[in-house]
Amino acid sequence: MRIGELSRRTGVPVPTIKYYVREGLLPPGELSSPNQARYDETHERRLRLIRALLDVGGLKVAAIAEVLQAVDEPGRPVHDVLGAAANRLGPPQPDDGDDDARSEARDTVQELIARRGWRVSTDNPAATDLAHALVALDRLGHAAFAELLDDYADAAEQVARADLDYVNRRVAVEDLVETVVIGTVLGEAVFNALRRLAHVDRSAQQFGD
Amino acid sequence: MRIGELSRRTGVPVPTIKYYVREGLLPPGELSSPNQARYDETHERRLRLIRALLDVGGLKVAAIAEVLQAVDEPGRPVHDVLGAAANRLGPPQPDDGDDDARSEARDTVQELIARRGWRVSTDNPAATDLAHALVALDRLGHAAFAELLDDYADAAEQVARADLDYVNRRVAVEDLVETVVIGTVLGEAVFNALRRLAHVDRSAQQFGD
Repeated sequence: MRIGELSRRTGVPVPTIKYYVREGLLPPGELSSPNQARYDETHERRLRLIRALLDVGGLKVAAIAEVLQAVDEPGRPVHDVLGAAANRLGPPQPDDGDDDARSEARDTVQELIARRGWRVSTDNPAATDLAHALVALDRLGHAAFAELLDDYADAAEQVARADLDYVNRRVAVEDLVETVVIGTVLGEAVFNALRRLAHVDRSAQQFGD
Repeated sequence: MRIGELSRRTGVPVPTIKYYVREGLLPPGELSSPNQARYDETHERRLRLIRALLDVGGLKVAAIAEVLQAVDEPGRPVHDVLGAAANRLGPPQPDDGDDDARSEARDTVQELIARRGWRVSTDNPAATDLAHALVALDRLGHAAFAELLDDYADAAEQVARADLDYVNRRVAVEDLVETVVIGTVLGEAVFNALRRLAHVDRSAQQFGD
């Protein structure tokens, strides 16, 4: 199809599609004449993925470029590529100094990982993200929030189990990495929305009339 | 304290503090002379909240200004203010058209809310966010992801219960709204990091050697 048709099908304006090609997010179309390129279903699918990461996942264009690199890397062991893709999906790591609070938060996270029996390396970026969040909570006077970590971890395990069952039942091997990206970003959006709805319900019980 | 001391205590540069005052995120200090303002612990606390929302929560300055408005609104019923604060914390609502997929997603969300017995209004922004995420999943060929909604909802209820118990045990009434903001944004960061760690563990079981 021509770029106009690709734009019509996906709702993404033509100049935006050209921008994604320039930024390396979308492979260029195949030239059918010096001034015209043809696009196919792989472009349409990739474009929908980019828009979902942008609009629903809230990722920036540079982060999407990095994530798509992992999606497109061939020949690496599945578990390894899954990890690489997931690692690029976290928030940017704020520089919050290297004081006592931070080293205590790191210990808390490592203890949690050991207690849950999770097989993750100690330098996993998500472990660092978690420590950052605990430092921020501590600085805001909510160090006690760490008491909830096992409740949160129970819930996270339940969601991860459902996610991986879905991957096993529904996803062909060649779509695995793309599905991890979609599932990580859109699954977060789904869970965060559900948590906010569940908060409203609990809050209505406790504070409503 | 002077602005230099406030900067030293919080790690936020003086020009950035001045920028937050200009943007209405931080109340101005009390003028102690025509060229000098004094700041106190409420400024320090507010500054830490702004940085946590920015750095860990990934919110933009404009979104933070809106959220802080809700935090500072006096005299509204607690449940109402909690809802208003939470409603401003969602991602920006993408315009994803008004086709069949979207109306189907809205129905799915309303059915879920009814099935769970959640007391939330049908136009809650989190319900709209959830429908958006389902539309994006559908467009990427993952309509079947909706099968996981009850697993996700179970986990969300568990987390919401822990959150509200924490609020009941730990939080004074005057800190309620600020705590909801902190808990919503940093709690999402905590859960998302834990979910990514739990993924690594499940994926090691399924795909590791």
